[in-house]
Amino acid sequence: MGSFKGHALPGSFFLIGGLWWTGKYSFWHATRRNKSLGSTRLASRASQRRLEVIESSLMLFFSVVGMLAEQFAANGPQLQLYDTSENHWKDLMNWQHATMYLFFSLAGVTSLVVHATDAVPLALDRLAMALAFFNEGFLFLYHLHGRNMLDVHVHYMLLYAVFSQALVVFLEVFHRGNITLELLRSALCLLQGSWFWQIGYVLYPPSGAEWDLADHNNMMFITMCFCWHLAASMLTVGGLYCAINCAVRSRLKRTPPVEMGLLKLRDRELESDDETL
Amino acid sequence: MGSFKGHALPGSFFLIGGLWWTGKYSFWHATRRNKSLGSTRLASRASQRRLEVIESSLMLFFSVVGMLAEQFAANGPQLQLYDTSENHWKDLMNWQHATMYLFFSLAGVTSLVVHATDAVPLALDRLAMALAFFNEGFLFLYHLHGRNMLDVHVHYMLLYAVFSQALVVFLEVFHRGNITLELLRSALCLLQGSWFWQIGYVLYPPSGAEWDLADHNNMMFITMCFCWHLAASMLTVGGLYCAINCAVRSRLKRTPPVEMGLLKLRDRELESDDETL
Amino acid sequence: MGSFKGHALPGSFFLIGGLWWTGKYSFWHATRRNKSLGSTRLASRASQRRLEVIESSLMLFFSVVGMLAEQFAANGPQLQLYDTSENHWKDLMNWQHATMYLFFSLAGVTSLVVHATDAVPLALDRLAMALAFFNEGFLFLYHLHGRNMLDVHVHYMLLYAVFSQALVVFLEVFHRGNITLELLRSALCLLQGSWFWQIGYVLYPPSGAEWDLADHNNMMFITMCFCWHLAASMLTVGGLYCAINCAVRSRLKRTPPVEMGLLKLRDRELESDDETL
Amino acid sequence: MGSFKGHALPGSFFLIGGLWWTGKYSFWHATRRNKSLGSTRLASRASQRRLEVIESSLMLFFSVVGMLAEQFAANGPQLQLYDTSENHWKDLMNWQHATMYLFFSLAGVTSLVVHATDAVPLALDRLAMALAFFNEGFLFLYHLHGRNMLDVHVHYMLLYAVFSQALVVFLEVFHRGNITLELLRSALCLLQGSWFWQIGYVLYPPSGAEWDLADHNNMMFITMCFCWHLAASMLTVGGLYCAINCAVRSRLKRTPPVEMGLLKLRDRELESDDETL
Repeated sequence: MGSFKGHALPGSFFLIGGLWWTGKYSFWHATRRNKSLGSTRLASRASQRRLEVIESSLMLFFSVVGMLAEQFAANGPQLQLYDTSENHWKDLMNWQHATMYLFFSLAGVTSLVVHATDAVPLALDRLAMALAFFNEGFLFLYHLHGRNMLDVHVHYMLLYAVFSQALVVFLEVFHRGNITLELLRSALCLLQGSWFWQIGYVLYPPSGAEWDLADHNNMMFITMCFCWHLAASMLTVGGLYCAINCAVRSRLKRTPPVEMGLLKLRDRELESDDETL
Repeated sequence: MGSFKGHALPGSFFLIGGLWWTGKYSFWHATRRNKSLGSTRLASRASQRRLEVIESSLMLFFSVVGMLAEQFAANGPQLQLYDTSENHWKDLMNWQHATMYLFFSLAGVTSLVVHATDAVPLALDRLAMALAFFNEGFLFLYHLHGRNMLDVHVHYMLLYAVFSQALVVFLEVFHRGNITLELLRSALCLLQGSWFWQIGYVLYPPSGAEWDLADHNNMMFITMCFCWHLAASMLTVGGLYCAINCAVRSRLKRTPPVEMGLLKLRDRELESDDETL
Repeated sequence: MGSFKGHALPGSFFLIGGLWWTGKYSFWHATRRNKSLGSTRLASRASQRRLEVIESSLMLFFSVVGMLAEQFAANGPQLQLYDTSENHWKDLMNWQHATMYLFFSLAGVTSLVVHATDAVPLALDRLAMALAFFNEGFLFLYHLHGRNMLDVHVHYMLLYAVFSQALVVFLEVFHRGNITLELLRSALCLLQGSWFWQIGYVLYPPSGAEWDLADHNNMMFITMCFCWHLAASMLTVGGLYCAINCAVRSRLKRTPPVEMGLLKLRDRELESDDETL
Repeated sequence: MGSFKGHALPGSFFLIGGLWWTGKYSFWHATRRNKSLGSTRLASRASQRRLEVIESSLMLFFSVVGMLAEQFAANGPQLQLYDTSENHWKDLMNWQHATMYLFFSLAGVTSLVVHATDAVPLALDRLAMALAFFNEGFLFLYHLHGRNMLDVHVHYMLLYAVFSQALVVFLEVFHRGNITLELLRSALCLLQGSWFWQIGYVLYPPSGAEWDLADHNNMMFITMCFCWHLAASMLTVGGLYCAINCAVRSRLKRTPPVEMGLLKLRDRELESDDETL
């Protein structure tokens, strides 16, 4: 995966994921706050569940595709782990990346079971996701032996984002539905995504002009650049949140909740369940 | 303890412990969720307590046996700490392992007192167990001086499992009865058990083919292998949880709770106590 | 910013900020405790909000001024990041300091939106401030390459204060309105401010007598000196708290709350809202 | 303070403190649990407060004595910090120890104000104590430059105890009255006390037989020895807790609570206050 594309691809996934989460949680929070205006029309408990199931399925699908791609793409190991003829491990990088995808697919399965059935406690989806992020960081941590200073440094910056995200998701096990944590998670996911792109640009510059990987000034710039990415992701999350909040309010005010009385009783009970989650 | 058996033995204990915990907590959680179906027939508060007492006794018994084995087995120090004739410490390894067992026996005693009498606050059993795991990790941490790179690395992986477990059990002091933490603890216990086996295979391969302890690729493989162990333990816990949950439900649905009315009043009060723990 | 003034200026800001916070939170806590004496006259919910808006605006204003000063002052980079003629980064120090100010201005904006409108969840202002402090520490951490031992040491001491503060503010996301955390934050802010002055005195002594930056005894003295700063800031916060508390009480006792009945109903509701924040 | 006595003295203080805390919290917990038996006779809220005031005063007294002793004893610096004739810092060790005592005296003052008046929020006494322990560890941490391996190692072990205690006391800010944390704190205080004695025996053996400070086996033994101290302090706390619990119960059962009705109303209200702390 040592190529520009190899960093841009996961980066794009995390960027899309971050935007999606920002949108989802902002929308849900806006509907929860404006219940008096009849906002349950926009996001009933049943529709929320359907959305979660779809999200989990997509996560599962893409991580399985990722695993297969790592194994069977051009230079993949094709499920062969040890090359007995030459006595060395085969394509350890691909195997490591496949392992990362494996944990995200496990998180997808857990989330699917949690939201599609009633059998499993809710908090397990967050736990599985926290483990997936932790595992990603863990593998990256032992991934960096013998590389150049700047190469190591950009990956360490990535680790800050990944481990913070693991921690935030783990905190959500205890503080589920805390909008602050959810927005922080979204911002960190955006950060991770845009930083993957940055790593691609630094290590495999498409323009051809190589960076000096041992220059200390480059390292100082990169550190600062990471902070800019964080600021940008905070601004993106903040802007999106405000936009969605305004949109929900204006739409609720335009159309008075005449059909409120038609809500089935069962739906309302689920609604009040939702509050106590 | 520098042998294959010396690692396989504690590994098996932790594996059995992890499976046992998974089963116990899954079963209790299933009965708590299905109270409307009269599940208290299956696990009354009194039977839960009896189970805890038995578990603590077994833990105490095996850790005392472990201590005695470390002291009086073939090459043990036989309670002699300092060899005055040669002016050096005697069998420090055995003493260290005995100390580990000592803390698990302390945890066993605490748990026994907590569940057999009313004198002691509940949370103390978790605290004692957290200290036992912390102590295990602490001794391993200062155990690794001057070993080969891969030897150190596999033990560091073990420390991740041990210290995470200590942390999770410590969190249970404040979040007792949180099924997410209980299942995470079970998974980490399984991980620790299977990793002991893995260490045995890497450092003392029964097949005879030695690992190159200084090869960086081996280290990278081992890191990934640790993640696979984690994934496997997560799958095991997940599968077991779902199986037990289904079994409890189907059994409860087959046999309607006719005898519900016969529950003694005292038992029910204990039941509602249980909720507020 | 490598000058005495360059350290005294931010130091003064943090000192003023710390004193301001101590005063604000002490006053609010005193009014909350003395509600029975009609203390809502002194600090109604509406006036609290107005104060927060003013505070946020000032924070925003000064951090924007700081950013502009870093960019356009005498030797600033004037928004030019890369010097293409000489192929090196331009004035990275100034850019780093501007980045620090950027995050504080982001925190200011967030706090302004939180307190001036209802659109945004309350806890976000603490989150943004925690990120601002974390970011400050993060940039300082990678700022210290290749400096003298004592120079590094005094900055490490600073990092203790900065990261502790980031942590305390992050804890406030979950424990909003906890007076203990608020006073701790004020004390750490004072500590940071006075330590900036101390750094200025050590690295750029106005008296002219230079410190030996490689002497181990100096390092030991500096460590102890940091503790004295902490003690002094604790005493300042403690003294100020007690003084304000006494002043509020004596004033409330002097003027009996005759006008209590005139409070508008809406105000009272906000008051009780305040309790449940 | 580089002498056997210099370590035995603080060790004895911590030992006495740990025993005292164990007794106090065990007794209070026992009376709280046995309220139905009229245990408020044994420990009313007012008597608890009086005890806290006495404890704080003693703490303040002894830490002030400690400060004075460090300054004015035989070789003390007598409040002189810098020796201008020889251009070096004077008796930095004594100043550092005095600083440690200073923070404990601050904690004493805070606790005194908290319990003797109503002006200050309760949690501040725990915060001040957490800072006192943190500060102790912080100064020790930068105290160890250029010493022998074993000397550093025994002090690192001490740091584990000190920083854990700081953390536990900080947790008590949020979980006040949690008996598990209180007993853990007592155990860690005992551990710290007995470890000070151990350090004295290792570095300044009264028997005269010197330890080889560079031998790795000694280091391994010391690590294990620290675990034994921990086990011993756990056993001491556990035993004391059970003994006090039994004593309270048996005494309450012997003397039926005939005088219950005579309790003044005000006292009872304080009692119920106590529950909600």
